[in-house]
Amino acid sequence: MIETPYLLFLGDAPDQLAAKVAQGIKDWRPEFALGQYRMEGCKADMKVPDMDLAEAHAAGARTLVIGVANRGGVISDSWKAVLHTALEQGFDIASGLHNLLRDEADLVTTAARHGRILHDVRVPSVKYPIANGVKRSGKRCLAVGTDCSVGKMYTALAMDAEMRARGMKVSFRATGQTGILITGDGVPLDAVIADFMAGSIEYLTPDNDPDHWDLIEGQGSLFHVSYSGVTMALIHGGQPDALILCHEPTRTHMRGLPGYALPSLEQVRDTALAMARVANPACRVVGISVNTQHLNEEEAAACLAEVEKRMGLPAVDPFRHGAARLVDALAAI
Amino acid sequence: MIETPYLLFLGDAPDQLAAKVAQGIKDWRPEFALGQYRMEGCKADMKVPDMDLAEAHAAGARTLVIGVANRGGVISDSWKAVLHTALEQGFDIASGLHNLLRDEADLVTTAARHGRILHDVRVPSVKYPIANGVKRSGKRCLAVGTDCSVGKMYTALAMDAEMRARGMKVSFRATGQTGILITGDGVPLDAVIADFMAGSIEYLTPDNDPDHWDLIEGQGSLFHVSYSGVTMALIHGGQPDALILCHEPTRTHMRGLPGYALPSLEQVRDTALAMARVANPACRVVGISVNTQHLNEEEAAACLAEVEKRMGLPAVDPFRHGAARLVDALAAI
Repeated sequence: MIETPYLLFLGDAPDQLAAKVAQGIKDWRPEFALGQYRMEGCKADMKVPDMDLAEAHAAGARTLVIGVANRGGVISDSWKAVLHTALEQGFDIASGLHNLLRDEADLVTTAARHGRILHDVRVPSVKYPIANGVKRSGKRCLAVGTDCSVGKMYTALAMDAEMRARGMKVSFRATGQTGILITGDGVPLDAVIADFMAGSIEYLTPDNDPDHWDLIEGQGSLFHVSYSGVTMALIHGGQPDALILCHEPTRTHMRGLPGYALPSLEQVRDTALAMARVANPACRVVGISVNTQHLNEEEAAACLAEVEKRMGLPAVDPFRHGAARLVDALAAI
Repeated sequence: MIETPYLLFLGDAPDQLAAKVAQGIKDWRPEFALGQYRMEGCKADMKVPDMDLAEAHAAGARTLVIGVANRGGVISDSWKAVLHTALEQGFDIASGLHNLLRDEADLVTTAARHGRILHDVRVPSVKYPIANGVKRSGKRCLAVGTDCSVGKMYTALAMDAEMRARGMKVSFRATGQTGILITGDGVPLDAVIADFMAGSIEYLTPDNDPDHWDLIEGQGSLFHVSYSGVTMALIHGGQPDALILCHEPTRTHMRGLPGYALPSLEQVRDTALAMARVANPACRVVGISVNTQHLNEEEAAACLAEVEKRMGLPAVDPFRHGAARLVDALAAI
């Protein structure tokens, strides 16, 4: 668990997009985004108070989160100066960078000297069990996609926000580094050893109140040959009661795989549901989330109406129209 | 790659079954099983010449393979004495034990001093790529099971032996530690990091002659919730042209998962084939391997006849009847 609230480190971000981790925290867990730390030349702005390290610590921030992608894949000396000072002033540091904090000997030394923690959220910090398939109490929902990067995390976070607003019992369960930094906890599933993938998801979504929902962040796609094993482990380890299908209607081939056509929503529904029912015979598909960012309003409305009619399920773009109808469908289970 | 031929280390094996890795090598790669090294009290016998280290080295053996499970999960001092001497006399050591050779500092020191290699085949030694899904030349066959431990490795090895005997171009591709020790090479798939599972299988089964067959060792089952992700990665990374279904008809529940019923052969056929066709639209199911070890001759014959009729595919127990009919089916593709 990463200690919250956070001071968001934006470094020398060249533009707003480079700080998308910080943006995710600000959008979905504004209560964690106490302030931002920007260096000379930073072009990103989360619209939260600018603070120096001492101010943020005094205000209660306990972790400096690297909210920006680093240029060239290395932690620069100008960043390092800030990170060392943060450790000295009592901050832990959390990062999803490929360049691990723990591989920087000077940061490790400073952290050890001051008793602080370096959280590299790309790397599992837990020895996960092998999945045992035992039925757990509480309810779980998993987003499964026709492809990678079609909006599964966004969909789950939008549902989480709606369910919180309604006062429902809900936990967003992160399975990737951005989600982990947003919520402060989770499983970096793509970095888990094969034998323990499903077990890590059982660990992530333990027994809970009968009316509590885990919203499990999806990964990959059963139809994406590079990552389908990861998706399968989510379906069996997650033991979902409900599936949300996620789709991006303008994509011409599977992400990173020219020549691989996207499956139909029907194929994803039938395959994912059959697999999910191995672990939870009561599982059903409750709704469809369509990422219409590349369609105009009229095209988006037509696309959603067509999908909804064809599939007989509520079809929404949670970014344009909110997740209320998906949550209605969950609540009806 | 592990250097062959081998001297099989049987240690102080309490019975024949404890030496099943050595037995596998003797059965499937007799040309690698130059001799055996037995300690005081050893109750296993591979029926190959007993040799001391010097004799085996003079005869050409270059690797001492730990062919026996160790008691209590630790490498004992009595074993250690032999292992040190082997390293000093010019042997590499290969092991599939949970207790890794590399975790024994004294063995590491001796190996380094003598320029020898410690092969822990449970641990990947390669940085595998992410799968790219590009179509590869040559043909591939994958065994998929209704459950774990139903005879997938045995089936592939029996087909490999039959195809070698017929002079066909064939490679058994090991994906587990026993298979790796038998053939000297392979991918320990259950220990691979999630993102690289499918890529490791692409790496294992590269472009080849158009009439060459890779026989890929299966793992787990799409219907086994603990390991289904591993199976999925084999199906997509392996890009199989042919599937063999493997089944054990007397099992009352999925291995290690009380309450989980086995899928039918029809379910495995339909699910595995649909998934395989994502990566290779020409894939087909060509035969069925039934492990009838818990049936008598009459029951086995009745079972195989029933499965063959119901599924419309050759159904054999390769242990009882050989793999010839499965190879006939492959050759007909």
